[in-house]
Parts: sequence; C-alpha cells; structure tokens
Amino acid sequence: MPLISQRAEDMPASPIRKLVPLAEAAKARGTKVYHLNIGQPDLPTPQVGLDALKNIDRKILEYSPSDGYRSLREKLVGYYDQYQIHLTPDDIIVTTGGSEAVLFAFMSCLNPGDEIIVPEPAYANYMAFAISAGAIIRPVLSTIDDGFALPSVESFEALINERTRGILICNPNNPTGYLYTRKEMNQIRDLVKKYDLFLFSDEVYREYIYTGSPYISACHLDGIEDNVVLIDSVSKRYSECGIRIGALITKNKRLRAAVMKFCQARLSPPLIGQIVAEASIDAPRQYATDVYEEYIERRKCLIDGLNKIPGVYSPIPMGAFYTVARLPVEDSDDFCAWCLSDFEYEGETVMLAPASGFYSDPSKGRNEVRIAYVLKKEDLQRALVVLSKALEAYNNRTK
Amino acid sequence: MPLISQRAEDMPASPIRKLVPLAEAAKARGTKVYHLNIGQPDLPTPQVGLDALKNIDRKILEYSPSDGYRSLREKLVGYYDQYQIHLTPDDIIVTTGGSEAVLFAFMSCLNPGDEIIVPEPAYANYMAFAISAGAIIRPVLSTIDDGFALPSVESFEALINERTRGILICNPNNPTGYLYTRKEMNQIRDLVKKYDLFLFSDEVYREYIYTGSPYISACHLDGIEDNVVLIDSVSKRYSECGIRIGALITKNKRLRAAVMKFCQARLSPPLIGQIVAEASIDAPRQYATDVYEEYIERRKCLIDGLNKIPGVYSPIPMGAFYTVARLPVEDSDDFCAWCLSDFEYEGETVMLAPASGFYSDPSKGRNEVRIAYVLKKEDLQRALVVLSKALEAYNNRTK
Repeated sequence: MPLISQRAEDMPASPIRKLVPLAEAAKARGTKVYHLNIGQPDLPTPQVGLDALKNIDRKILEYSPSDGYRSLREKLVGYYDQYQIHLTPDDIIVTTGGSEAVLFAFMSCLNPGDEIIVPEPAYANYMAFAISAGAIIRPVLSTIDDGFALPSVESFEALINERTRGILICNPNNPTGYLYTRKEMNQIRDLVKKYDLFLFSDEVYREYIYTGSPYISACHLDGIEDNVVLIDSVSKRYSECGIRIGALITKNKRLRAAVMKFCQARLSPPLIGQIVAEASIDAPRQYATDVYEEYIERRKCLIDGLNKIPGVYSPIPMGAFYTVARLPVEDSDDFCAWCLSDFEYEGETVMLAPASGFYSDPSKGRNEVRIAYVLKKEDLQRALVVLSKALEAYNNRTK
Repeated sequence: MPLISQRAEDMPASPIRKLVPLAEAAKARGTKVYHLNIGQPDLPTPQVGLDALKNIDRKILEYSPSDGYRSLREKLVGYYDQYQIHLTPDDIIVTTGGSEAVLFAFMSCLNPGDEIIVPEPAYANYMAFAISAGAIIRPVLSTIDDGFALPSVESFEALINERTRGILICNPNNPTGYLYTRKEMNQIRDLVKKYDLFLFSDEVYREYIYTGSPYISACHLDGIEDNVVLIDSVSKRYSECGIRIGALITKNKRLRAAVMKFCQARLSPPLIGQIVAEASIDAPRQYATDVYEEYIERRKCLIDGLNKIPGVYSPIPMGAFYTVARLPVEDSDDFCAWCLSDFEYEGETVMLAPASGFYSDPSKGRNEVRIAYVLKKEDLQRALVVLSKALEAYNNRTK
C-alpha cells in the first residue's frame, strides 16, 4: 500500500475532532449536549436569501465565472462601501468560502519554507492551509492576562527573517473576540511596510463589534494597498455557512492574476450559493440589527455568567461571537473530554473547544477553552449552570 | 510590493484563456460564436434536481458534514452499484466538485518532487493541481494516429523511478473521448501492483460510452483496492457543473483519514449542491436515456462532419463528449485566435480549444484542437460549415 504524503501526516487533527465521538456517545446515552464548541450560528438566514433559492428559474445549473458573478461582486462593492472599504468589482474574487480564500492566498503568496507570523491563539485551520502551501506559521503569543491584545512590535520583529513573507490577523478575532485598535493596526501597517510583507486579514466577523471602538480594516491602512489580502465570507453575517461563499480581496493586480490561476483550475465557486449571497446583501437593515442585538445580549449573558463561576475568568470580547476563558483546571483537553464521557447534570452536559487547538504549541492554553455564544440566551444560561456543576464535580473527582 | 509564489508563476495559463477576450471582442462586433471549446453541457438539469431547490425548507443554511451528507453518500452507493462498483457510504467523501477531489488526492498522496505518470493529451487542470501539491506530471504520449490508445507499458516503465508515486487516467477520456479497454486497464493494474503506485482514475464521463465496449472502472480491478482513488463529479451527468459536487472514493482507510484532514480544514462541501445532487440521482431513467441518445446523435453529426472537411481528421471517440481532431494548420493556437479575431462567415465564427493546452510540452499537438459536442445538432452542423470556411480562408490567407 503506497504511503500518504508527509503533508497529510503533518496536518493538524483538531482536538475538537477527538471530542466528536464522545459527544455522539453522550447523545446516544440520552444526555443533552450544549454545543458551545462551534461557530455555527443558530440564527436564521435572511428570508430574501431563502426566497432567492425558491425563485431560481434556470434549466441548467451551469458553471459560473471563475471569479464569481459580476452582479455579486458589484453588490459586494456597495456592501464594503458602508465600511469605508472602497473597491471595484475587479478587486473582488469570489471564493468557495473564506477557507478557499485563505488557501489560495497562501498558495499564491508563499513558497515552501516561507514563514508568516500569526498572533495566537488563532483559528486552527490557518495552520492546515499553511501546511497545504508548505509554509510555516511563526506564532506571536497574545495572552489572556493582556485581554489578548496585539503582542508587542518587538515580539513580531524578533521573528522576522529572510523567509518571513507575511503577517496574518483575524479581526475581530476568532477565537478571542479581540478587536484590534487603531494604534495596533498602525503598528501592523508599519511592520508590513518596513519589511514589505503581505498582510492577510480575515475580517469575516466585522458585523459583530460590540463596543464604541472603531473597526479598522486592513483595507483602511494607507500605503500598503498592494500588500493587503482581505479574507471574507458571508457565512457568519447571514448565517449561511453551508453555501460556501467567500471572497479574496486585493488591490494588488499581480496577486489577483496569480490567484485567478488557482480559481480557473477549480473552474468556479458554487453557483447557487452566489445567488443566495447576492440576494442576502439586500436583507433589510432590521435583519442585521436583530442579529446584532441578539449577540449583544448573549455576550453579556455568557461573559457575566462565566466570570461568576469560581475560578473562571473571561476577558470581555469586543467582537465576533467567541471568547477564550480560563478555567480552574490543569488540562482543558481532559476536562472537555470528561464533560462528555463522564459527566452529566440533570441529563445535560456541555461541549467546549479546548484552547490547545488554537496554539501551534499544544502546551499553550492548557487551562483555556473557546466558548461560542451561538445558542439562545436561555440555553446559554442553562449551559453556564451545567458548566459550573461540571467544574465542581471535575475538581472534586480525585479528592 | 512582495513577490507572488513560484508555484503561482508555474501555474499553467491555459491557451483557452488567451482566447476569451478575443471571443468577447468578436461578440461585441456582433459576430455569433459557436462555443465548441467548453465542456458545459447545454442539456437541462433533471427536473427533480431543480424541484429540490424550490422545496428547500430550512431556516438556516448551515454547515454540512466535512465528508458530505450521509444520505447523499448512501444514494451514491446505489448509483455506483449499477456500474458494478460496490461501495459503502464510508468509502465516499463528498468534495467541492471533482476539482477538489483531484486536489485533495494529490495533497494527500504526493510529496513535493513526487511524480505521477499521465497519458497525454490530458485535462489541463491536472497540471494545476499537481503544481499546487508540488508534484510533477510525467507525460506518456498517446497519439491521434493510434486513436489515443493507452501508450505502451514500456513507455510507462521507462518513466518509473524512485519518485514515481502514481498513475492518473481519465476514462472515458477528456479531451480525446478514448475509452480504455479491459486489456489496457489490466496493464495499468499490473503496473500499479508491480510498483505499488496510486491509481488516480477520473471517471466523470462514465454515462457517456457509445460503443458496445464495456466500461472498466479502476474500481473493477482486482488486487489494487488500496491503491485506487476514484475521482467523480455529478457535473456532467446531470448538467450540474455549477453546484460543485464531486466525490473522492477509495477503499484505502489511511488515505481516507488523510483526505478528511483537508476536508475538515475547508469545513464542508456546498450544502445546497448536495441537496440537488441527491435529488438528481432519482431522475427517471428516461432522463439519462434522452441525454445519452442526444450525445449519440451529436457525436455522429460532429465526427462525420469533421472527417468530411478536407485535411481534417478525427478518430471516433468512444466516450465523453469531446474529440481531438487534426486540422490542416501548422499552429492551432494561431488558427483558433484567428477565427475569433480575423474571421467570420455570414456573421458567425467558431471557438475551439487548441490542443497545446492538453500537453505538458506545448510543442505537442500543434495541429490539433479539442472540440466539445455540447451544442444541439443544428448548431453543430452550422459550426462545421463555419469551421470548414474558416480553414479554407485561413489557408488561403497568405497565398
């Protein structure tokens, strides 16, 4: 039997994957599991998006253009304008989810052995796409005690060498909910300019910013227009994770031409998803307001509740719909597994994402978990009770 | 401005891409262009598939499982059974089109520098996916004079070295329409077994086999079950190129686990496409029969017509909906461009795919073109007249 590739061996197996069979077994035993582990919103897709599906009047579901329908890209121009991101349809390449945008960005920008610097904890799949491109992620560590603020400029510069090709940020951040300040974004801009790096900026959570602080997009930074690669997706903002529509946005023409070669090889992004996404941009303002207000309440409910549990600490996330919290346990991988395999409280338990999966060095974040607030408030409240009971029972376990 | 990757530089720019702006310009001048260059069928998607869209009754368009819905994979088991390909749902991983199946197969099986042997002419995007994985395609040449039959075993063995990791075939073949015989498939099996290679077999055109010859799938070959990676797609069989639903199929459990890591990184294949594909499997038998009979007629019309044009020769394709024909020109890249930029006959012209794009060595196939018979018969007949006039005018051009 021929061997699989080294790259496949190196691909990270997210710690959450090991928990999935445990969660299934718990459910099979009749235990209700509160899923605080995933970023799948429970809020409805805009009705105009769902209606667009029903109104499809085509006889052939044919290929769409490799860079996506122009009508969708034109609509997106108007969407980004609201955020003071000024684009032309040609600056936008529609991708199969934000995932493909990250993959194609790395494939187009990074040679094998090239390095990118990524503040951690970070979305685990960046690592997978870096490995796919043969590139190396060099982490700079943000810490819970600093509220996951941007690590110092010095800590970036300490990693920069002749193989360094880019910086990747996620803003607002998954998993921490942190929103980079203007000062931090300017620091990043200065680094990018000084060392002529790519700036990969994943901004799929821009709808969800809960403080008065401004959203500073990488596209707002002056003087690095040819260095910026914006990663985007409609998944989170319209509760359309399944349609797989994202975008890679750059003003850099040579890079766009390079990315287009990868786009042409895979022929086209999903046709039907583009139709739904385009319609969803026309969702009434009330849709966005309702979703936003719902997350505001959930965030308050979750963070207040977490910080009331003895030994638990969560900074206040400024955006997205996640937080990374510290738990009074030594090994959150073990605790998260135990919640599913050995615990239930009145027939219920919780599934959390161990934070170790968000660090390249799995010895980091051992007492942290990522919690997503994508459940309705009553469920979040109940999940907090169950989590509190779980921590108590876990820590009394060996006494 | 930071440089793009070497991989992006190396990605092939298909010769067809250069023709696209010429075709657009021709249309802008009011010239009608017969598109013989693309594999986008003009036949309708099954009504049950279109109906499934209208009947989607979900409030949230959420992620689907990374390996695709089990209900779809179960339906596919029944579909493959008809072809004596006996699978379980676990053998099937749903991908974002056949394209992603090829990419993930290469990513999972091939290390940078590894080689695969591919009979050429071949589908141009295999090269793009090989470059994405850092792998090298070593071509074995099939020729129009041999009707594009499988090159000799010796020509394969001459290329096999310590870096050789696989053989890739497309059967029935794009671009040639060739269908590998049982004897040829057994030769491939023996090579795969002898050298313990992967056999990547792209069989997306299995519906379209026009002779009494049997369809021998790579999955029919005994003793190499762990070596075979079947690439499939619903695009061509249901005229659903736009929904981006394909499959990677293998009995090799280690390989499946490796491929799943790439699948998990990109989260999920398109949700709505899966719903349409699953419904389409239930299309009445009459749908497949109608489509098949339509292609039978078009094939006869095209091939008869081509071989009547002085100096043109096309073998009789046994499957798919393409043929590679020899034209009485020295440089089909130039001829195909000229048809769009300098020629029209009664306000019409033709767009063909220069065969040079299907060979790694672009000096090969210079007097060949790929012609797709995805237009209705009357259009094919008219396109043949226009082609004939174009060849005449082109060859009288400099006299």
